[in-house]
Amino acid sequence: MNLLQNYLSGRWQAGTGQGTPLLDPVLGTELARVSSAGLDLADGFTFARETGGNALRAMTYRERAGLLAAIGKVLQANRDAYYEIATANSGTTKKDSGVDIDGAIFTIGQYARWGEALGDVRALSDGAPARMSKEPAFLSQHVLVPTRGVALFINAFNFPAWGLWEKAAPALLSGVPVIVKPATATAWLTQRMVADVVEAGVLPAGAISVVCGSSQGLMDALKPFDVVSFTGSAETAGVIRSHKAVAQLSVRANIEADSLNSALLLPDAAPGTPAFDLLVAEVAREMTVKSGQKCTAIRRVLVTAAHYDAVAQAISAKLAKVTVGNPRNDTVRMGALVSREQLDNVKAGLAELRGQTDVLHDGASAPLVDADPAIAACIGPVLLGTRSPATADRVHAVEVFGPVATLMPYDGLEQAYDFIRRGEGSLVASVYSADAAQIAETALALADSHGRVHAISPEVAAVQTGHGNVMPMSLHGGPGRAGGGEELGGLRALGFYHRRSAIQAETAAIDAVTAASTPFAR
Amino acid sequence: MNLLQNYLSGRWQAGTGQGTPLLDPVLGTELARVSSAGLDLADGFTFARETGGNALRAMTYRERAGLLAAIGKVLQANRDAYYEIATANSGTTKKDSGVDIDGAIFTIGQYARWGEALGDVRALSDGAPARMSKEPAFLSQHVLVPTRGVALFINAFNFPAWGLWEKAAPALLSGVPVIVKPATATAWLTQRMVADVVEAGVLPAGAISVVCGSSQGLMDALKPFDVVSFTGSAETAGVIRSHKAVAQLSVRANIEADSLNSALLLPDAAPGTPAFDLLVAEVAREMTVKSGQKCTAIRRVLVTAAHYDAVAQAISAKLAKVTVGNPRNDTVRMGALVSREQLDNVKAGLAELRGQTDVLHDGASAPLVDADPAIAACIGPVLLGTRSPATADRVHAVEVFGPVATLMPYDGLEQAYDFIRRGEGSLVASVYSADAAQIAETALALADSHGRVHAISPEVAAVQTGHGNVMPMSLHGGPGRAGGGEELGGLRALGFYHRRSAIQAETAAIDAVTAASTPFAR
Repeated sequence: MNLLQNYLSGRWQAGTGQGTPLLDPVLGTELARVSSAGLDLADGFTFARETGGNALRAMTYRERAGLLAAIGKVLQANRDAYYEIATANSGTTKKDSGVDIDGAIFTIGQYARWGEALGDVRALSDGAPARMSKEPAFLSQHVLVPTRGVALFINAFNFPAWGLWEKAAPALLSGVPVIVKPATATAWLTQRMVADVVEAGVLPAGAISVVCGSSQGLMDALKPFDVVSFTGSAETAGVIRSHKAVAQLSVRANIEADSLNSALLLPDAAPGTPAFDLLVAEVAREMTVKSGQKCTAIRRVLVTAAHYDAVAQAISAKLAKVTVGNPRNDTVRMGALVSREQLDNVKAGLAELRGQTDVLHDGASAPLVDADPAIAACIGPVLLGTRSPATADRVHAVEVFGPVATLMPYDGLEQAYDFIRRGEGSLVASVYSADAAQIAETALALADSHGRVHAISPEVAAVQTGHGNVMPMSLHGGPGRAGGGEELGGLRALGFYHRRSAIQAETAAIDAVTAASTPFAR
Repeated sequence: MNLLQNYLSGRWQAGTGQGTPLLDPVLGTELARVSSAGLDLADGFTFARETGGNALRAMTYRERAGLLAAIGKVLQANRDAYYEIATANSGTTKKDSGVDIDGAIFTIGQYARWGEALGDVRALSDGAPARMSKEPAFLSQHVLVPTRGVALFINAFNFPAWGLWEKAAPALLSGVPVIVKPATATAWLTQRMVADVVEAGVLPAGAISVVCGSSQGLMDALKPFDVVSFTGSAETAGVIRSHKAVAQLSVRANIEADSLNSALLLPDAAPGTPAFDLLVAEVAREMTVKSGQKCTAIRRVLVTAAHYDAVAQAISAKLAKVTVGNPRNDTVRMGALVSREQLDNVKAGLAELRGQTDVLHDGASAPLVDADPAIAACIGPVLLGTRSPATADRVHAVEVFGPVATLMPYDGLEQAYDFIRRGEGSLVASVYSADAAQIAETALALADSHGRVHAISPEVAAVQTGHGNVMPMSLHGGPGRAGGGEELGGLRALGFYHRRSAIQAETAAIDAVTAASTPFAR
């Protein structure tokens, strides 16, 4: 039995019991097991908080940026092994594995560069000193300093690599030790990356820990200055936010949950225009990348009623070319879902949406390449459509976490915004048009219900970064149903791991404070 | 029966039933009653969210700043009436009433001025555009736009005026309608201020509502884009954060709860130095202003062991001069607590602390001026002390919300910081010294566990704004036990009422976005 070890209290520890198996979602074979049973979590969290926290806070931002650069090198050196693990445990094609693995390495590299520029200080100044009286002798200067606690990450199965490092990079740069609990289904890659970093000895003791298995007891180990960042279902998010640590101890919680992201074709983009083609290509890509298992994937496609049929046909034509099956076969464009359980969830979600929609393209029954449909967690892409999006309430509420999207017509932009807002807060909406002024207006109209608005116009067709790709320069998160969290966004991410304080003092003392800090510019 | 009306759905509405009485805490007489029973809260919240929200969002920041200026004028015109209500319902001296009433007017005025400078736009840009690729053609621009919801304020009894307006000013400036539920004991002043503003017709319909009485059902009326800001006990804070609205719908919650604020005499400040005298004066003032019923009041006083006795004597000498009783008598320096219930709480808290402390000054048994000790909620100031702050755990955990503080010695600054941190997060710590470099070092050391660090040095003796005075330029709030909230801090307060979004688009669209927004500078 290959029981993955946990790294806690500065040493490798095996959980007790038989553990929970991790499977190959294409072949159905067991790959490893995880168990966190019997671990002394309180001791592990204290070790991270004290030994790890003290060591990290003693370093400057520039020094901690150096840690990130060193992590990046370690991961780069072991990159081939990660691709192998992803193929086996996530069932993803090489390209899709890259979104996770290379996305992680890219994000760490960005924070290493940004952190280097923060220099050799241990605090950030936030804004300029403000006068507290008519005389300029008494001033208020806001500062950000690292929180004296740990950062607990309870992560999702779809990004075992990026999901760890997009959170760990800003946490470590901030001087806050990390404890990661990967989703069990794909815990192997997370555990392996942590093992490689530990093995390389590039981080101070206690700076990083990994617990594989159950999340039982993790929240109980938190104290007031700790933070928790969760990615996963809205239901579990509710449990986390109701937990005593958050509700009573004021532990900061960052949540990224469900999201019914939209793609909006603006009225100027008729069939035959480049913007129209860009929407078609982006929707087909977003539906199939990582088999649609991205929190940011397009779930709702809004087009003017006149173009509904043309869009349906064009997207369906693209989807018809997508081969599905074993990612080890080079002809396969789309691999597996992460597990049979997820396959069941996708089928259940599809059944629910089908009650209010038509099937415009049905890849679900297409034959698989090199994979046994009785074993593999594979399903082809399905495009649904409804001509009554005002009454089809399910399409605005049910996130099918697979290669599924729903097309719907709108009558006027205000109605389109209303439909999009029925998602009650999403991570991202994309907009397709050649009209820059209209793009700006639409983006500002959608900004309050989205963490990100991504505009694809012919002008940027070749350089746009993709509706669903989360770039470290931009905010990742969304209000309402999407959980209300904020991640990334360049140095904005550091805010979650810092405490803001106003220092009110005489000019000489404020001068000494600002001399010991770097301006927190975004 | 003088039943205070509720203003909801754009009209005055009486609650049903006998209501709950509001009393004069000195005379024990009934002043008014409140009831929110039978109100259609869902309708009222929808009216505020739609009618109020649409009207406010249609205005620019400069226009909304104009609303604040108009509110300020209305309040100024009715100021005498507010002082009368405060004397009767809060039992405060004129000076103490001013902290609440004039503090409110001052804060509104500040936000009116700051808002005016934001100009005639409806969005704020957050940071500069970031390149998303090597080519500068595709950019990411973060923006802040008002949330499409209501701001529910569930407020505390100690600041019926300031507690409303320090929250309402940034909310209304942000374009977010306000619904306030004042604490029952002192709801009259809040209700009267809202009535005056409504009567003056200076706000669009739905922009402000007031519900007096029970908070039952208020949280149930919240939707995902609403926000709630609570000031009060840690226990109720836990209920609010566990409520479905926050835990599951991602309603943003800002909490300001208990706090065991500290005053720290640095080692250089020996008896006879100006810094020493400044600490003595500030502690005596903070203990007695509003009878110690300020969330920011000093609860713990830390001095080097060598100066323990000298500080005890000096503070006690100041406290001995404090006359307590009916605020209508001009010789009275300190009025009443807000209610007999609070008096009982203070006595219970004192009893708990006395188990681990000595009584250094006992004003609790001193005779009252013009007040019947069997009726009035009055109690004189009590200075406690412990020479064993490491083991006297109650003094770091029990906030006695009255004129009570505990003196304790420290041995070395690291130990002082440790003691202060045992408060597990506080609103404010003050530092007394003539050494600017040491002030800066100490302020940065305490910043992670305090929303504000206030340094009082001889240089600024005449212009410093006071340990417990919350100035709108500086952050108000604190981590951990203090609730983890952030209020005020200049324009930083607008962040809570806005949604941040990253707009990724071609240069021309980003130019149009920035042209339609003002940089969010702090």
